[in-house]
Amino acid sequence: MNYPGGIRKKQENTVISYKNRGMTLEAELNSSNLYYKEENIAYIYKKPTPIKLVQVDYHRNLIKEGYFEKPSTTDYNGIYKGKYIDFEAKETTSKTSFPLSNIHPHQIEHIRNIKDAGGISFLIVRFTKIDKTYYLTGEDFIDFLEKETRKSIPIHYFDEKGFILKNTFRPQIDYLKVVDKILEVK
Amino acid sequence: MNYPGGIRKKQENTVISYKNRGMTLEAELNSSNLYYKEENIAYIYKKPTPIKLVQVDYHRNLIKEGYFEKPSTTDYNGIYKGKYIDFEAKETTSKTSFPLSNIHPHQIEHIRNIKDAGGISFLIVRFTKIDKTYYLTGEDFIDFLEKETRKSIPIHYFDEKGFILKNTFRPQIDYLKVVDKILEVK
Repeated sequence: MNYPGGIRKKQENTVISYKNRGMTLEAELNSSNLYYKEENIAYIYKKPTPIKLVQVDYHRNLIKEGYFEKPSTTDYNGIYKGKYIDFEAKETTSKTSFPLSNIHPHQIEHIRNIKDAGGISFLIVRFTKIDKTYYLTGEDFIDFLEKETRKSIPIHYFDEKGFILKNTFRPQIDYLKVVDKILEVK
Repeated sequence: MNYPGGIRKKQENTVISYKNRGMTLEAELNSSNLYYKEENIAYIYKKPTPIKLVQVDYHRNLIKEGYFEKPSTTDYNGIYKGKYIDFEAKETTSKTSFPLSNIHPHQIEHIRNIKDAGGISFLIVRFTKIDKTYYLTGEDFIDFLEKETRKSIPIHYFDEKGFILKNTFRPQIDYLKVVDKILEVK
């Protein structure tokens, strides 16, 4: 609607919503981890992407040539309630399934190792097109790989086995609530 | 000694020694962590150094300009016997003390947080000139910082509070033996 003087009145029916407003899953998780740290709840960090250095000017602290490498572990780890926490976070544009090509074989081996060693291991997967984010335990992820030959995990598997992570205010993604539930059962 | 035909007999008095033969502490720890992983004893990794990316050619996966950043956590973390393990490893050329300038304020805060959260936190410090490597608990490290105003930790503090890490064959530095001792007491 146009007003006199060309002023366009701002829309007033703004609904406060904490759902994903274009922020990447990574940014939301980093912000959540910062919240957990500041509140002394947990200390969980994203590992930097490994880089193969080819040409470095150490005097200037400058990398002139380097290449991104595939990580051999998951991206996030840390400590919560004395427990070792370890997870990978991925976004997919698919509306129906999560392509397993998103997780490298080394990462699968790592998830299996951490789960077997008694760590709290999981995936956080966001289906961006339908704005749904799931927590899937390492156990259920490995279980799928062992029982199925499909190259992607259908969304109904997430609905059946996973936990929905809704966006909240602080932290933006309170995935440790799911860890609490899992610790209760263990 | 020269032999007929110009053949030089190999020295036979080789003593098998596993002490540090020019390998860096980092290389020895990486090799030890690989051993722990292969034997399914522990899953402990060095985090990549964080890099500030300035110019990247994503089509070629190529970093054209980047700068090393100071890490805000320690370099190594992982899981052992279900426990969260977290440590920093440093070499010093000093023969008498370990300069605290080696550990950034963010790392000190991190060590304090991990210790308070019930993680197994420690430093591994090598005095390269005298070839001595110590394990110092996060508790004793923070204790020193709180009681002392010195800008370096004298080696006698390591002798008094720390544990000597001798070089062995496999793994090269068996620091989890010290963790075992500490877990027994806890």
